[in-house]
Amino acid sequence: MTDLTEQKILQSIQDRKATFSDFKKKVSTFTPLLELEKQAFKTSALDHKTKELMALSISIVTKCEPCMEWHLHQALQANASDEEIYETIDVAIEMGGGQAAAYARYVIKALHLFRTA
Amino acid sequence: MTDLTEQKILQSIQDRKATFSDFKKKVSTFTPLLELEKQAFKTSALDHKTKELMALSISIVTKCEPCMEWHLHQALQANASDEEIYETIDVAIEMGGGQAAAYARYVIKALHLFRTA
Amino acid sequence: MTDLTEQKILQSIQDRKATFSDFKKKVSTFTPLLELEKQAFKTSALDHKTKELMALSISIVTKCEPCMEWHLHQALQANASDEEIYETIDVAIEMGGGQAAAYARYVIKALHLFRTA
Amino acid sequence: MTDLTEQKILQSIQDRKATFSDFKKKVSTFTPLLELEKQAFKTSALDHKTKELMALSISIVTKCEPCMEWHLHQALQANASDEEIYETIDVAIEMGGGQAAAYARYVIKALHLFRTA
Amino acid sequence: MTDLTEQKILQSIQDRKATFSDFKKKVSTFTPLLELEKQAFKTSALDHKTKELMALSISIVTKCEPCMEWHLHQALQANASDEEIYETIDVAIEMGGGQAAAYARYVIKALHLFRTA
Amino acid sequence: MTDLTEQKILQSIQDRKATFSDFKKKVSTFTPLLELEKQAFKTSALDHKTKELMALSISIVTKCEPCMEWHLHQALQANASDEEIYETIDVAIEMGGGQAAAYARYVIKALHLFRTA
Repeated sequence: MTDLTEQKILQSIQDRKATFSDFKKKVSTFTPLLELEKQAFKTSALDHKTKELMALSISIVTKCEPCMEWHLHQALQANASDEEIYETIDVAIEMGGGQAAAYARYVIKALHLFRTA
Repeated sequence: MTDLTEQKILQSIQDRKATFSDFKKKVSTFTPLLELEKQAFKTSALDHKTKELMALSISIVTKCEPCMEWHLHQALQANASDEEIYETIDVAIEMGGGQAAAYARYVIKALHLFRTA
Repeated sequence: MTDLTEQKILQSIQDRKATFSDFKKKVSTFTPLLELEKQAFKTSALDHKTKELMALSISIVTKCEPCMEWHLHQALQANASDEEIYETIDVAIEMGGGQAAAYARYVIKALHLFRTA
Repeated sequence: MTDLTEQKILQSIQDRKATFSDFKKKVSTFTPLLELEKQAFKTSALDHKTKELMALSISIVTKCEPCMEWHLHQALQANASDEEIYETIDVAIEMGGGQAAAYARYVIKALHLFRTA
Repeated sequence: MTDLTEQKILQSIQDRKATFSDFKKKVSTFTPLLELEKQAFKTSALDHKTKELMALSISIVTKCEPCMEWHLHQALQANASDEEIYETIDVAIEMGGGQAAAYARYVIKALHLFRTA
Repeated sequence: MTDLTEQKILQSIQDRKATFSDFKKKVSTFTPLLELEKQAFKTSALDHKTKELMALSISIVTKCEPCMEWHLHQALQANASDEEIYETIDVAIEMGGGQAAAYARYVIKALHLFRTA
């Protein structure tokens, strides 16, 4: 009855928030990582949305579920359309084959969850 | 009490089915991927069962849990024996070391689940 | 309410134990793998604790959750301090970027769980 | 004196061409893969150039040198600017850390080679 | 004029032989690894050739060039046919997409080299 | 006659140096990455040498040749002994199996090259 994939997505969001203060206080690389992220995803020659979709495509191929949750969310915040998400999945499938298709299910479920939240 | 790994296996099957129509309708690469799969797994110089076991060995080394669920199921449908599954795990462990052994637990649990279902 | 990540960690421990006898009886590579592990983690030029932290750093970069659970536990048994765990995470983040940071959350949550158990 | 990285890039192009007829004749999955590629990289909600840059970012994180050679070339054919290539590297570094930075050297060298060819 | 991929294949064979005595003398895990390999690849429920092809399929998806060289060689020693090699590539492409196709070029070139040697 | 692996190691060093100014000038994430590296590898609860060996173990398992070249070099600069390098290889083999053993050849050859340079 309860959907375990949806629970995983919600837990991913919760863990991200719950561990943030530990990262800030105890992980020396975290502050430069935040600066690095700011540089990586800022609008410049490529806009912010495109960069988030790029990160989403990487996340699918590398099977990084918490990354998919985060970069999908960021892409939607930047007004990515459903079509753009599905075409990001297309590129991931070309690069990663059947394995990428299997992990794209997580993105599709997260997309439905975020659109109806 | 409830076994989370068994729940994950069952959820994997459910997600595969639940996202199928979205893939068909919205993911342009999905139709050629299905054709590609048909070509890859057809009996020819190597038979279907061998190819599914091969895909299972890849899935263990690449830590692709939904792939393990699917290719194990397909291998069993093609009459793979328990011995063949365990020897597939052997090859995965040789190629992937302790990490493959850790992911092989998922295959062993899925095997018990499918055999008793 | 229930924390799914904590459940995953506990399930990982349970699966490790539950599949052990199957591995011993049915997986031919398992006995040499145990011998290999003994050689890999013994105190020699590098001590046992350092080797377990090394294995933990690899586990984060390769996204191997059951490996993180096991090698964190082993490192703590060998008296690794919290500071040493967090610096292992630092090296993993340098090598694996944002993906490693996302998987390090699992280590941080397991650390809290093991410390309060 | 001879630059081995440049030789590798040129060899990558040559191998791609030299093996094409074998793939066409002897690899059953190759024809559906070509169709899959056509679907994945066509201009639609995302344009062709963006999709090639996306594939390039994936290639850096997954350390796929022949993929970098190909998708960089395709991105340049689609009029990607140097700035867009460097920002694709930025996203790859955020996702893949120091390892991605090490593989980005290959992209930078290929970029110089292709621009001066 | 000289083919760098062929040189890489020949160098891979040479490095395997040249480092063997160092591994034997200085790497404690090497002896149990050799025993593990013996167990993994012995003819049992699956025969030796099938297991080598399985290892080859894994090597393509994980982009392990020295592994491709070795397991292809072993498969040919066990009388694998060209058709069986190409179908192993098919399974790898299904699991690994365009990246696997790019690495399969190495297998095809090694196959030609070994057949004409 | 010329050893291609040695050439690759020397080319890796050369590419690292040759692309540095491009990274500095054109890659926005590079400055925060350098700061992140400084934090990750500084002597603190774990000393610099241990952290470099840790990074070397990760590099072997993830098949990152330019990373192996760099972190081996850094470990030797920090006075790592041959025994410590070989035990780092042991941990990598436990985590990565036969694939890690194949990539460890690169480390062994680089070790000989750096020791005799």
